[in-house]
Amino acid sequence: MHILIIGAAGMIGRKLSRALAAAGTVNGRPIRRMTLADIIVPEALDFGGDIETVATDLSRPGAASALIASRPDLIFHFAAIVSGEAEADFEKGYSVNLDGTRALFEAIRLAGLERPYTPRVVFTSSIVVFGEPLPPVISDTHCVTPLTSYGTQKAICELLLADYSRRGIFDGIGIRLPTISIRPGKPNKAASGFFSSILREPLIGEEAVLPVSENVRHWFASPRAAKGFLLHAAEIDTGSLGQLRTITMPGLSATVGDQIEALRRVAGDAATQLIRREPNETIANIISGWPQGFDARRAEALGFRAETSFEEIIRVHIEDELESRLPERA
Amino acid sequence: MHILIIGAAGMIGRKLSRALAAAGTVNGRPIRRMTLADIIVPEALDFGGDIETVATDLSRPGAASALIASRPDLIFHFAAIVSGEAEADFEKGYSVNLDGTRALFEAIRLAGLERPYTPRVVFTSSIVVFGEPLPPVISDTHCVTPLTSYGTQKAICELLLADYSRRGIFDGIGIRLPTISIRPGKPNKAASGFFSSILREPLIGEEAVLPVSENVRHWFASPRAAKGFLLHAAEIDTGSLGQLRTITMPGLSATVGDQIEALRRVAGDAATQLIRREPNETIANIISGWPQGFDARRAEALGFRAETSFEEIIRVHIEDELESRLPERA
Repeated sequence: MHILIIGAAGMIGRKLSRALAAAGTVNGRPIRRMTLADIIVPEALDFGGDIETVATDLSRPGAASALIASRPDLIFHFAAIVSGEAEADFEKGYSVNLDGTRALFEAIRLAGLERPYTPRVVFTSSIVVFGEPLPPVISDTHCVTPLTSYGTQKAICELLLADYSRRGIFDGIGIRLPTISIRPGKPNKAASGFFSSILREPLIGEEAVLPVSENVRHWFASPRAAKGFLLHAAEIDTGSLGQLRTITMPGLSATVGDQIEALRRVAGDAATQLIRREPNETIANIISGWPQGFDARRAEALGFRAETSFEEIIRVHIEDELESRLPERA
Repeated sequence: MHILIIGAAGMIGRKLSRALAAAGTVNGRPIRRMTLADIIVPEALDFGGDIETVATDLSRPGAASALIASRPDLIFHFAAIVSGEAEADFEKGYSVNLDGTRALFEAIRLAGLERPYTPRVVFTSSIVVFGEPLPPVISDTHCVTPLTSYGTQKAICELLLADYSRRGIFDGIGIRLPTISIRPGKPNKAASGFFSSILREPLIGEEAVLPVSENVRHWFASPRAAKGFLLHAAEIDTGSLGQLRTITMPGLSATVGDQIEALRRVAGDAATQLIRREPNETIANIISGWPQGFDARRAEALGFRAETSFEEIIRVHIEDELESRLPERA
């Protein structure tokens, strides 16, 4: 089979690409070819089959149909402008997050008009499609009322994914990712960045800034869990999804205080003392409109799995990103 | 003030235009100018101020900005391809119902970049944005999972309306209309046509076809109520809407059997005997995915009002469309 990953240069994209290359199969079918696409040229990787890397911008005319010309059987799409940038730049956010995704869907539809073509499409949405009202626990049948342009764009793409799938244009599945923590590497422009940095930086002996109160509660999964969601979404039978083609992924509902306490248990007081409180009203306001917890039974029944404690999330980070080296205890 | 009505040649558009011309004011502000636009030239009407009629297609490049160039203060937008046609013609449905609406919203945004401009935008959505799961009574916080491309297009426009309003680009309000019964005039391509024709035709002594069972339950309001919703939406304070910018309008939950019984009480057995049962599986299947009833307390608290019995709906039709002439009793 031929797999196309759009957004392959990002953190999740790289992890997913490596996992697929290592597995060599999806649902028992051998992977013969992988196309890794992103706005910048993604890194190549060791892989027994054909591999190609492409720099492309889905929102440019012709870009989507060029990607689809080789008719990949499985398409992962998570290229997006992040929330902060989509809020700051209205036109860019709609162009990339909405028009780019729609161009991809249209390219698949037009390819299918020539001769039959119905790939599996795995689309990543986000829990920030929810916004108002915000019950403490949100189910898959709760209304989608995003409080950001990013959330709006993701919500619109969920609707398109469902309609294109209903019409048999492709076999789509959307997964609403929890906030990913601990993101490795450098901070990006997302307002959620501190949810990772207050753990990531202290684990390597560096200072981190906490811009909100320890009472802030949110919904989390590790990068390893996110990679697992994507792999599972590529393999499951979509027949039972009905019109609810997008599913909120399981995660862990935790407060910032829970995060810090888990850090203390894993890495000691020396680590938690590296967290500097620096309240930021702008970030606090954005975060206040974010959900705190979900009823993810539907996803769990479909076999999606996430961590169940923040200590586990921290240990996953130490294994996957720090070569299993625990920091020195204080 | 200057009012723009897009979709002015349609049934609701004509009623609304005449009502506005007769009232002469909105929220106490005199109407100085009215622009009536549609895909065909709308009828002009008697009006003390300036009036212009325009044939335009919002989905054509430049059409929306041409309409917005004169900076109307209040914009009603309900031009759309109906559900059956949007399902049959994928491209036309998305082009008119999604791209046309988005072009209008973008034209307003771009006009506002030149100098401040924040019109009130009243958008008509539909209860067919709901589809799965379908509880017997649906609230404004229930998930939107349309089972048609038309419903998908309306749901997407609701999301855009909310985001553009949140960003202060315009002051939007969306109203989800119940199925309108009794629609005057000739049937259109909507699958819901029989909900009107089984009453309308017998009231003038003509035969009508009933393609579904009498047990089918649905949600209704009269054209007069719909006109009232639009006028009220133009006048209310939108400050309390928050991010839930689109509101399900009040209506009457009734079965086809209730409709027929009301017809019998108003017009006698001679009328009901003109209804010919002719089951149509295609229509029955479409209708089976439609909602049956709503919790419209939010709309009622905002002052929106509909009929409370089908006899009332039939009497409204006789007053407004048949010059108050009751049919001869059998």
